[in-house]
Amino acid sequence: MLEKNKCLSTRDLYGYWQKIETRWIDNDIYGHINNAVYYEYIDSIINSYLINQDLLDPLKSKTIGLVAESHCQFCRPARYPISMDGGLRVEKIGSSSVRYEIGMFAEDKDEPIAVGGYTHVFVERVGCRPTPVPQKLRKVLGKLIKKM
Amino acid sequence: MLEKNKCLSTRDLYGYWQKIETRWIDNDIYGHINNAVYYEYIDSIINSYLINQDLLDPLKSKTIGLVAESHCQFCRPARYPISMDGGLRVEKIGSSSVRYEIGMFAEDKDEPIAVGGYTHVFVERVGCRPTPVPQKLRKVLGKLIKKM
Amino acid sequence: MLEKNKCLSTRDLYGYWQKIETRWIDNDIYGHINNAVYYEYIDSIINSYLINQDLLDPLKSKTIGLVAESHCQFCRPARYPISMDGGLRVEKIGSSSVRYEIGMFAEDKDEPIAVGGYTHVFVERVGCRPTPVPQKLRKVLGKLIKKM
Amino acid sequence: MLEKNKCLSTRDLYGYWQKIETRWIDNDIYGHINNAVYYEYIDSIINSYLINQDLLDPLKSKTIGLVAESHCQFCRPARYPISMDGGLRVEKIGSSSVRYEIGMFAEDKDEPIAVGGYTHVFVERVGCRPTPVPQKLRKVLGKLIKKM
Repeated sequence: MLEKNKCLSTRDLYGYWQKIETRWIDNDIYGHINNAVYYEYIDSIINSYLINQDLLDPLKSKTIGLVAESHCQFCRPARYPISMDGGLRVEKIGSSSVRYEIGMFAEDKDEPIAVGGYTHVFVERVGCRPTPVPQKLRKVLGKLIKKM
Repeated sequence: MLEKNKCLSTRDLYGYWQKIETRWIDNDIYGHINNAVYYEYIDSIINSYLINQDLLDPLKSKTIGLVAESHCQFCRPARYPISMDGGLRVEKIGSSSVRYEIGMFAEDKDEPIAVGGYTHVFVERVGCRPTPVPQKLRKVLGKLIKKM
Repeated sequence: MLEKNKCLSTRDLYGYWQKIETRWIDNDIYGHINNAVYYEYIDSIINSYLINQDLLDPLKSKTIGLVAESHCQFCRPARYPISMDGGLRVEKIGSSSVRYEIGMFAEDKDEPIAVGGYTHVFVERVGCRPTPVPQKLRKVLGKLIKKM
Repeated sequence: MLEKNKCLSTRDLYGYWQKIETRWIDNDIYGHINNAVYYEYIDSIINSYLINQDLLDPLKSKTIGLVAESHCQFCRPARYPISMDGGLRVEKIGSSSVRYEIGMFAEDKDEPIAVGGYTHVFVERVGCRPTPVPQKLRKVLGKLIKKM
């Protein structure tokens, strides 16, 4: 059903790393981290990167990224209180969009727990009209492109 | 980047409907319902259907569905306190998996706000080994298959 | 440990009602709706009321309510996919603050599942300085004051 | 309205510390971490402590803690991507209950962002009948009692 098995992803694909701290509430009734919660991790890693690199001020930037699509493959169950390593790579930079991928790994493992990502379409904050990817963002994110 | 533009989905594709009540916390800093939250809606509609049709008891069923992949397209922003209609269809029933799709529409609109879904792999609760889709489930869910 | 047993609250205390639709993700690993999630319900009922009564525009109002304290008593466990009735009353209107209480009941029951609430301190959106409770708000919310 | 101003709490009250990593989704439409989310932090710190000290196995322990009441004071707004220090103290150990308090501080600050907590009533997992606080738990948690 899926184009590509992202569960074969390896740590060397990802150029930026951040810890993912899980929460009690992340576990569902089966004792697994719920699928929707992985998108909270993905969202946090991407936005932390943008904010820390001075590419985004969520309250003031004139250009913001809206999520146009997202997707994730769940390779093996995980359970709070696990800590994970979240790796970021950039899959593609288009004229007004960027597609990111996040690999999520248990701290001592090389096979991912989940691999997912999303596509940001950049728009003007006021009016939400698509706008070209800002040059600084294009330059910084370009360094995180790695082929799979 | 995407195989198919799901934002063209229409209400007639979906055979089961449920209200989606949004929450204050669903809005993000941009005043839009956050992308991860749509997966909470998707999860709730699919599981409500399974529970209400007597196909799943989350605490007791010997066979449970684990989410193997999920995906969503975001067609237009929405904001709490909007109410949405969530429609369910079944895309495919495999030997041990089912792929569902949910269309989410503003109550008075025919163009979707978001369209997404996921693939359940059915496993034995104890040990998590894949198992065939139970016959009753296959029969009931089969009625929700509609071609796009 | 608690001043007052709010689990004795009855439906007649509450003057405004709204359905609470639970979500799959609301259940925790014990199969109960997680304690933090009740505050999402509380927040949604209070803000829906303010928005629907034209007392708040989350994006534009010059005066907004910030939560200064919150509290909840959990009287009996509940489990998704339960639907609840959420009732709102106003406990106290101060010079720049309002204290709300929400009673949450199973649809066919008179004993609450949980009773909680919070105190809004009204502030100017820009600068966050406390400001008197707006007159219109004071008048409308005054109708929801009921003694326990 | 409140018995005690917990916003005067100081770091020396708390005997166990853990990092709190915020998430993009924690911010609400006002650009503040939503009040309900602080209860996710509280829940995670308390349960991490119990799990790491071998006092709780969420899937197997015969005795589990259910939350009977919770409460929090919000002293100053915070915004993702802030990291906080979460400190744990035990306020009181009763015959079958424990009341915890969590102080949450910006990493470089001595005044809390929020101070809250909850009361665990210990019950048998099967049947949910109250049961005495297990001896080992009483002993370990007793070390975290500090007077305010």
